[in-house]
Amino acid sequence: MLGDCIENLRKAGPLVHNITNAVTINDVANVILACGARPIMSDEPADILEVTSICDALNINMGQLKKYTVEGMFLAGKKQRQLGHPVVLDPVGVGASSFRRETATGLLGEVDFTVIRGNISEIRTLALGIGNTAGVDAAVQDRVTEETLERVIPFVKAFSGRTGSVIAVTGSIDLVSDSSTCYVIRNGRQEMGKVTGTGCMLSGMMAAFLAANPERELEAAAAAVCTMGHAGEIGWCRMQEGEGNASYRNRIIDAVYNMNGEILNKGAKYELR
Amino acid sequence: MLGDCIENLRKAGPLVHNITNAVTINDVANVILACGARPIMSDEPADILEVTSICDALNINMGQLKKYTVEGMFLAGKKQRQLGHPVVLDPVGVGASSFRRETATGLLGEVDFTVIRGNISEIRTLALGIGNTAGVDAAVQDRVTEETLERVIPFVKAFSGRTGSVIAVTGSIDLVSDSSTCYVIRNGRQEMGKVTGTGCMLSGMMAAFLAANPERELEAAAAAVCTMGHAGEIGWCRMQEGEGNASYRNRIIDAVYNMNGEILNKGAKYELR
Amino acid sequence: MLGDCIENLRKAGPLVHNITNAVTINDVANVILACGARPIMSDEPADILEVTSICDALNINMGQLKKYTVEGMFLAGKKQRQLGHPVVLDPVGVGASSFRRETATGLLGEVDFTVIRGNISEIRTLALGIGNTAGVDAAVQDRVTEETLERVIPFVKAFSGRTGSVIAVTGSIDLVSDSSTCYVIRNGRQEMGKVTGTGCMLSGMMAAFLAANPERELEAAAAAVCTMGHAGEIGWCRMQEGEGNASYRNRIIDAVYNMNGEILNKGAKYELR
Repeated sequence: MLGDCIENLRKAGPLVHNITNAVTINDVANVILACGARPIMSDEPADILEVTSICDALNINMGQLKKYTVEGMFLAGKKQRQLGHPVVLDPVGVGASSFRRETATGLLGEVDFTVIRGNISEIRTLALGIGNTAGVDAAVQDRVTEETLERVIPFVKAFSGRTGSVIAVTGSIDLVSDSSTCYVIRNGRQEMGKVTGTGCMLSGMMAAFLAANPERELEAAAAAVCTMGHAGEIGWCRMQEGEGNASYRNRIIDAVYNMNGEILNKGAKYELR
Repeated sequence: MLGDCIENLRKAGPLVHNITNAVTINDVANVILACGARPIMSDEPADILEVTSICDALNINMGQLKKYTVEGMFLAGKKQRQLGHPVVLDPVGVGASSFRRETATGLLGEVDFTVIRGNISEIRTLALGIGNTAGVDAAVQDRVTEETLERVIPFVKAFSGRTGSVIAVTGSIDLVSDSSTCYVIRNGRQEMGKVTGTGCMLSGMMAAFLAANPERELEAAAAAVCTMGHAGEIGWCRMQEGEGNASYRNRIIDAVYNMNGEILNKGAKYELR
Repeated sequence: MLGDCIENLRKAGPLVHNITNAVTINDVANVILACGARPIMSDEPADILEVTSICDALNINMGQLKKYTVEGMFLAGKKQRQLGHPVVLDPVGVGASSFRRETATGLLGEVDFTVIRGNISEIRTLALGIGNTAGVDAAVQDRVTEETLERVIPFVKAFSGRTGSVIAVTGSIDLVSDSSTCYVIRNGRQEMGKVTGTGCMLSGMMAAFLAANPERELEAAAAAVCTMGHAGEIGWCRMQEGEGNASYRNRIIDAVYNMNGEILNKGAKYELR
């Protein structure tokens, strides 16, 4: 059951190193605290190796990517994997520039990511970058819907097989997959897209779930996705008249703060494919 | 009617590129989502040209100005204008250092800004920087009040004439002016000054309004100012006992999220001079 | 009475320069506004000397330390002390890397800090860095409790004596001490540790208290600590069902916004040792 994963997380209280963008860095820190872990942020190459060495997991987020942080991403990513710790890649907006695409391709070549989490457009860009076949790519549209599911799941499994990473594709339906098993998750609300950083928060929280649930990578990643989605549902139920996306942000993080194994087991909506 | 402008914005959902400071960057992203647009942040010169090329508008904010971002401001500003898209300049604290003044003067020389938005002190600093006449400057004090209005409006119209930009001066009374027509706006509340970033949020939102209302620059800029001010009024009405500036920030963004043409038309308080 | 200190602060409205991390920079700005002061953020060496020269106090925060900001810390720190203004050092995570330790040691050597504020682990790292005796260090554990108080207070007084700075150690019990007198403060709640940035906010606010209460450094620093701790108590009382750390953050800042001398005098819990 996925509920075990968050109970393990609250017991372990892992320290999660985040190399992330300034836009959502505060929300990432607060959601990591909310789920029972502890955040530390460092993106200075002079600082990063020592900081990452005392951490239990690493979250690399490419949003607002800057040249000076790229070196640290490579250093920290390789170090964490040497230590046997989980590393998450969030390739934010990777299709937006060749600088981002080249950085992502380089990282995929040198760091053995535990999970790669993005929307379908970002995941497709990564797959193209490492030379995926045209036929498969052409079949994958920018939205994961009930209609496209049959085509997207094999693509995601294949990409997991080629990278060795669990692939988490989030959207109106979320997929969390290794090369053989795919969690199809139907938690969350469309209005979460009106809050900046729900994806960034999920990636940070996922690193925490992975650290506290070793050797259950697929399940831990799925539990993180269900936690975020269900928190979005709970938070929406608590919205008062006149509230909007700023209050919703707080209510989502608050719902993560109050999440436990029982709530998650009851609220998680998924099937295995 | 100004209400059309926000209705157009919600239909168009433009992508707004922001080069902005770390202090308020999260609020800028959330308010852009709240008004119906989509934000993207990039300030890395290696990334910025490609990112800005897929956007519909640009917001350049000089708060916490850093050397490494200046090059990107020039690149993105010129590119957006070549594409015929609106560009907003927010000269935050431009009077605080020669580095900021020189950057602003350089930008004014090379980028044909659609709107320049600041407080009266910032706007005056810019006017001095491009060699405004002493007589006019001397007449402009640091506050726009009913008493100083007669002197400030001609100054703002003249500065618009010289720059070719719409000038938006925000304070206890807000002015949005081209060289011939000035909106004198009396929305907003004094307590908004206790929330960091209400000016930054306005500039980001203004870029979105401009993108969705081409060839109505003056009206679109005025609609953005009225939206922010009226959201401040609505948000204040919803304050509960014991709340302060942190809750007020959320309530202002929430009110933008719930703003529509009808609410804006009823709430906007302005005259043309 | 400590209540005078916040009344003086609301009257003076000092301008506080912050060189701080991106994680909590927005909260630092809002809490400085909440307590009646005005924040300005600049960390660009080309900008920093002019900015700091118009300010009344400086807050140097080493969180997420970056190479490019270090030069500015030295420049601004020395300039502010030449001007006779208070400077606070917040050595966030100073034990996490040699880059942070060396920067802190360098700063301690060149800037005569008014207050150094950190947790016991950070303060101990600083003391070791300037060559404290092993015997004293060994006695100081990573937590300040009723049991360890007898050993920690002499350590803190000795460190104040050696640095000439007021030392503020925050934790479950807070200590604010010069070389002879130590405020032992029992405000605050454990749940504040689940909100990122409560320490950063306190340091920014402390610089404001110091600026508005010259020649009462020890009392002003203690008043800032009691204000933050009591705001944490008030904010917690106002929490609604289903709320968590995101709402708590807002409620803490809101409580600072509504703090006055009377509330602080009634709520401050401290003894002198």
